[in-house]
Amino acid sequence: MASEQAHVEAPLALSKYSKRVTLKTISGRPDGGAGLIGQRVVVGGCVEVLQTKLPFFRSIIKAFGGEQRIREKFDSIIPKPPQQSISILQVSDGSCVPSLLMTVDSGLATPAQVMPTGTCILVEGVLQKPSLQDKEKQVIELKAEKILHIGTVDQDRYPLSKKRLPLELLRDSTHFRPRTTTVASVMRIRNGLTQATYTFFQENGFLYVHVPVITSTDCDGSRENLVVTTLLGRGEVEGDESASVKLEAIRASIKQKSKQVEELKRSDSNKEALAAAVEDLKKTAELVSQLEAKQRQKSGKSALTNAVNFSEDFFSCKAYLSVTGRLHLESYASALGNVYSFGPRFRASSSESKKLLAEMWMVEIELAFSEMEDSMACAVDFLKFVCRWILENCAEDLKFVAKRVDKLVVDRLQLIAAGPFEKISYTEAVEVLKQTTARKFERTIEWGASLTEEHESYLAEEIYKKPVIVYNHPKEIKPFNVRCNDDGKTSAAFDVILPKVGTLIRGSQSEERLNMLSARIKELGLEKKQYEWYLDLRRHGAVKCSGFSFMFDPFILYATGLNDVRDAAPFPRSFGQANN
Amino acid sequence: MASEQAHVEAPLALSKYSKRVTLKTISGRPDGGAGLIGQRVVVGGCVEVLQTKLPFFRSIIKAFGGEQRIREKFDSIIPKPPQQSISILQVSDGSCVPSLLMTVDSGLATPAQVMPTGTCILVEGVLQKPSLQDKEKQVIELKAEKILHIGTVDQDRYPLSKKRLPLELLRDSTHFRPRTTTVASVMRIRNGLTQATYTFFQENGFLYVHVPVITSTDCDGSRENLVVTTLLGRGEVEGDESASVKLEAIRASIKQKSKQVEELKRSDSNKEALAAAVEDLKKTAELVSQLEAKQRQKSGKSALTNAVNFSEDFFSCKAYLSVTGRLHLESYASALGNVYSFGPRFRASSSESKKLLAEMWMVEIELAFSEMEDSMACAVDFLKFVCRWILENCAEDLKFVAKRVDKLVVDRLQLIAAGPFEKISYTEAVEVLKQTTARKFERTIEWGASLTEEHESYLAEEIYKKPVIVYNHPKEIKPFNVRCNDDGKTSAAFDVILPKVGTLIRGSQSEERLNMLSARIKELGLEKKQYEWYLDLRRHGAVKCSGFSFMFDPFILYATGLNDVRDAAPFPRSFGQANN
Repeated sequence: MASEQAHVEAPLALSKYSKRVTLKTISGRPDGGAGLIGQRVVVGGCVEVLQTKLPFFRSIIKAFGGEQRIREKFDSIIPKPPQQSISILQVSDGSCVPSLLMTVDSGLATPAQVMPTGTCILVEGVLQKPSLQDKEKQVIELKAEKILHIGTVDQDRYPLSKKRLPLELLRDSTHFRPRTTTVASVMRIRNGLTQATYTFFQENGFLYVHVPVITSTDCDGSRENLVVTTLLGRGEVEGDESASVKLEAIRASIKQKSKQVEELKRSDSNKEALAAAVEDLKKTAELVSQLEAKQRQKSGKSALTNAVNFSEDFFSCKAYLSVTGRLHLESYASALGNVYSFGPRFRASSSESKKLLAEMWMVEIELAFSEMEDSMACAVDFLKFVCRWILENCAEDLKFVAKRVDKLVVDRLQLIAAGPFEKISYTEAVEVLKQTTARKFERTIEWGASLTEEHESYLAEEIYKKPVIVYNHPKEIKPFNVRCNDDGKTSAAFDVILPKVGTLIRGSQSEERLNMLSARIKELGLEKKQYEWYLDLRRHGAVKCSGFSFMFDPFILYATGLNDVRDAAPFPRSFGQANN
Repeated sequence: MASEQAHVEAPLALSKYSKRVTLKTISGRPDGGAGLIGQRVVVGGCVEVLQTKLPFFRSIIKAFGGEQRIREKFDSIIPKPPQQSISILQVSDGSCVPSLLMTVDSGLATPAQVMPTGTCILVEGVLQKPSLQDKEKQVIELKAEKILHIGTVDQDRYPLSKKRLPLELLRDSTHFRPRTTTVASVMRIRNGLTQATYTFFQENGFLYVHVPVITSTDCDGSRENLVVTTLLGRGEVEGDESASVKLEAIRASIKQKSKQVEELKRSDSNKEALAAAVEDLKKTAELVSQLEAKQRQKSGKSALTNAVNFSEDFFSCKAYLSVTGRLHLESYASALGNVYSFGPRFRASSSESKKLLAEMWMVEIELAFSEMEDSMACAVDFLKFVCRWILENCAEDLKFVAKRVDKLVVDRLQLIAAGPFEKISYTEAVEVLKQTTARKFERTIEWGASLTEEHESYLAEEIYKKPVIVYNHPKEIKPFNVRCNDDGKTSAAFDVILPKVGTLIRGSQSEERLNMLSARIKELGLEKKQYEWYLDLRRHGAVKCSGFSFMFDPFILYATGLNDVRDAAPFPRSFGQANN
């Protein structure tokens, strides 16, 4: 039967460089793959972590194509089990949201080998009509005829064996979590946003510049710098790691306790036991918070007390991981016109944040012969473009995260893609916030202070209900190189505030006047020597430049509905966290 | 006259976000811009560093459009000079190779303001026929009618005032050098290669993954690591920088002396003085080498002697700048299929190299369900694609660097784009090299040793005269995670060697067998704890993966004919060098 239908369709295109067909090639067809029945394909992927509620059918007798006998040539690969059975698996390969049903006869591989969640399998087989009539949505399944590879799972030790682990717990398994359907969708959307970013800038004639990650310029005078050195390279790690080890152990016990709570909930047996377990869990969590706080405090004080001679260091000077690439970009904008960069930037902040990481990817641009309004226009176009792009190109994944994470995801993207942005000056924003009576802020706002997250969210979510651009901030709260406005008080800076995530774009026009820039460096007590090269750009052929930095990682939260940036970056780095 | 012709063409498209027209929009037309005569445009750019041999015409009387009088509305901007004159400038804006001739009446700006090389200028004017009949190649020039911005140059202090500075000297002015025509072309080609890279992988269905720059895994056990820390963050810089300062001063004097030698050469007056100056220069250069060597030695020894407690550091552990992202990529390949990454990678090597930097951009890929041959095929396709891409999309810049840097540039790209690659095993390569009598190698090759640069160049340039893939290297000279071949001696690794630049791609199939991988880690004495997460990928759902790393920066040398990677990276970082 199968072979009769095979001639209807041309053979499926193989995945590049791996002699298999991706599931996207099958499920991405208008018919969902139904027209492919009878085709012989090789498919590889993981037995799914989530969603699978497939029973293990023992000794189901089916007679596809009239042949149920275990063919001899397969016998050599895996020993024949005592009793014949068919494993039904739901396999996904990361290429798309839909997974594929797969039946594996025990003659090919035992259920114990292939059934555990996370098992990796490469199978040659024939596409056929679903054998399970109750799975309405499946239009096709693969009948395995040859097992090409099995990567088994140690079910008891595999952290993703349990169904539906919350994202918080998945953070301890960053190397496994892209195997979950949610994280896979998030990462495909992230890929889409990356692609959209490059497309926007290339289509608009920007040149890509690889600005350095290592710099000797403290680019925004923030002093929250990570130092790059070889001076510690061969130093021994001192013995006393007890605090960390202890903390680690308690964190592990929390996981254990959470599982217990889950099990108790499910078993529905003993209300008292459940309450006690929940109480215990809470206490342990508190203990962890305390220990973490203590460790943070300790770490803040732990700078080596003896003087360090950086002239002996690898770079012959004190070198940092860059906080921003915009200073370096300006040098290229002056020469080549509009330029952009997309790379990791760093900040050694020990405060907890759901929006910031120690290592974050940033999009940075610099426009030659431009003023603040030009960068503002570019920021708006850019945001609209990337939102439209993923609405068009990642529809399936957006639908999935809308179901799993946040149903407002698509509306939120459309809000940017189609709608206008509100534009108000900082002074107006302060007025609006001061007149607010409907909401009590933790910190009242006065002219001169930075807007806090609650102010930002109130403006974007409550008052204007759309993205808000706040511009002309007091010069004191903006970096040294932002151009001073004629009023002497404000500077040509702007922030783009989005609902849900707050300020993701910080832009500004640079101070092109040498005397003004030098004065600012002096005023702020910055070490002028570091900035000589940057001042050079004003001494010789100064150009009016403006640009912005876009925080890529927290934008993933906007685009997926997630709430913590640690779930949006593949391997998040933050205070105390760089564990692979 | 001008206004009569203006209706012939629609207004030129403005550069995005800067209210001016890029020169590419003008010179990129089939007629080179001739059809635009009469159009009013705003153009901005730098007065060119190279190529300009334009005389300064004092009091040339021309009568374009019959109006030479200085219009009153411009008077207020710049005071009227005593004598009328016209400055003729060659302005480039970085958007393309061709520059634009521009005439500026002294009523708008004095020659002293606009003539110096490097001056930055934004001008509104009318396109017209060239006023200088001897400049045959120019089909159009801009008559300035309004100066919108001038960024003057302090000619005596501007390092690019001299014509045709050698690339070596430009390295001291990384922030200025994109203003030179050669570096501008190189950077546009670099941008093209970046774009080609993304295009290739996106078109072939790869997902982009941002692997971390900061890692606690010593990814290839190389130990040439840069450490990331906040332990030194607040430590004071010790006083004695005398050695560095001294060295810097002598380097400066070398530049001075080089200039003197150049001038003496030009003046042609005194042969003895020239010889003496050359001798003096040589001695100073030797002194610098000695001092540099001393400093390097010192630096090697200068690790802090007291023990460091990394559990108190920012990441609660010893954290490095990543040497490779392939280990982390594997985690994503296992889940999502074919993945790639493009980001900075780091190596703290203090040895001089024209091919390596401390910070280099690398393209890295990992293919799920694949073997060594699949990655090899991908490497070949990738190289062919990017070469074809820039041949098609960067033709003008390639022509320019062919003229300025290396006339073989296009041939070399076509060699990859069109031709076959040679594929030989390591064992065969060693045989071939041992049988070589035509050339004496500094180091003779024996089975088991790495091929040196001279071996590589001999294979690719002399014997096969094309790219050469050498595969199945002895396992001892490859990283711990390369899959062991069945012979027990070799491993599933390959290098792609290109003429001129040597090995730019290193690829391999990863060891998917847990016991084999653990054994290798033990054998090499690596700290197993670091690799537990990586071993996890074998414990649970192991997939056969292969992939490669492509060194992006040295490939720019292949594509432009440059010889030193410090000229190909925007802000190169190397031993002792991170000066902005």
